[in-house]
Amino acid sequence: MAARPLAEVTVGDTIGPVTVPVTRADLVAYANASGDQNPIHQDEDFARSVGLPDVIAHGMWTMGAVGSVVSAWAGDAGRVVEYGTRFTKPIVVPSSGAEVVVEGTVKAVDADTGRVTVDVLATSEGQKVLGRCVAVVRLD
Amino acid sequence: MAARPLAEVTVGDTIGPVTVPVTRADLVAYANASGDQNPIHQDEDFARSVGLPDVIAHGMWTMGAVGSVVSAWAGDAGRVVEYGTRFTKPIVVPSSGAEVVVEGTVKAVDADTGRVTVDVLATSEGQKVLGRCVAVVRLD
Repeated sequence: MAARPLAEVTVGDTIGPVTVPVTRADLVAYANASGDQNPIHQDEDFARSVGLPDVIAHGMWTMGAVGSVVSAWAGDAGRVVEYGTRFTKPIVVPSSGAEVVVEGTVKAVDADTGRVTVDVLATSEGQKVLGRCVAVVRLD
Repeated sequence: MAARPLAEVTVGDTIGPVTVPVTRADLVAYANASGDQNPIHQDEDFARSVGLPDVIAHGMWTMGAVGSVVSAWAGDAGRVVEYGTRFTKPIVVPSSGAEVVVEGTVKAVDADTGRVTVDVLATSEGQKVLGRCVAVVRLD
């Protein structure tokens, strides 16, 4: 796939905001794909029984969904060479579904190596769900 | 779920090695769950046409699968509070399937905060697939 040209990227460039929807069906699909069948991600009665407000998204689902916004911006998931985050707060997914809003800011561009550092902000219902979320992409 | 007691964790403790299998069906399930339908993860002819040796696993699949070994060790995925990695080399997944071998080492334990830092080594066919892979879990 065509990657974004490095020459077109500048410190301070922004990505999004992009709104990513999430439904309970998405979490069931992720549970089946990942093997993480913890019922807190599928069963609202179970989730509430352990003190959660409702079903919550898997942290790794969230990390993947947020990362996909950076991948789309880079033009190719293979361009994402580093990715890290704190799991600050889970996304609560009521039966009507939820959304995560993803925004990125280019913090550094290394013209020699093509490494572009992107700080990522991910919120749901106005609350930050990932903290210190940073992706590094390599462009040329 | 019952988390591992902090008192039972010491710097130098090791996790695994745990061998995680991966099949092309796993990658199709992950593609459907994540929305990343890039054919390099499903179609060997396409993968080879772009210079890859065969179908490769999604980086985020790999990150999730490797992280699940740390989650299982911690006793609860909710205990993983930070996670980051470099995507060093993709896992090649022939039609017969592949494996990723995951080993962890406890590098730091903060008895006050319960933060436990785990360095994670992930290899496939003897090659490191993730680099500088670090998970932080919070135990009590």
